Amino acid sequence: MRMQVLVRLKSGVLDVQGKAVEHALASIGFQDISEVRVGRLVELEVEAGDEAAARQRVIEICEKLLVNSIIENFELRRI
Amino acid sequence: MRMQVLVRLKSGVLDVQGKAVEHALASIGFQDISEVRVGRLVELEVEAGDEAAARQRVIEICEKLLVNSIIENFELRRI
Repeated sequence: MRMQVLVRLKSGVLDVQGKAVEHALASIGFQDISEVRVGRLVELEVEAGDEAAARQRVIEICEKLLVNSIIENFELRRI
Repeated sequence: MRMQVLVRLKSGVLDVQGKAVEHALASIGFQDISEVRVGRLVELEVEAGDEAAARQRVIEICEKLLVNSIIENFELRRI
């Protein structure tokens, strides 16, 4: 089963990469772009009997390796 | 209008970050995970009159700054 994980910085956390992209865009003429946030996209194949089991497995993976829960949160989707 | 961009390595391109995640997962007991691919998630606010205009603007941004079209492709979504 293929699962997608979107990892985002929590809303209160300064996103320096997002700010850098925003400034770079403004400098090449895209002044109409704002509130840029940059996160990670992780897609993986999970051996699991059903979607609930796959989701549970991916939540474990996020908590143990992929996500720093102090500053980030995540969203799962089956793809 | 808030738009989401998912940037992925093209399928033939070696994903070293994905391989590193896969090996790290296997080493902590997640041998049931495979085909890990790591990409970028970019979310941004676009000043545009309608969704078609916003999509067009984001495509320009991807082509000019966010995406290396030789090795990456991208997917847009309004959020």
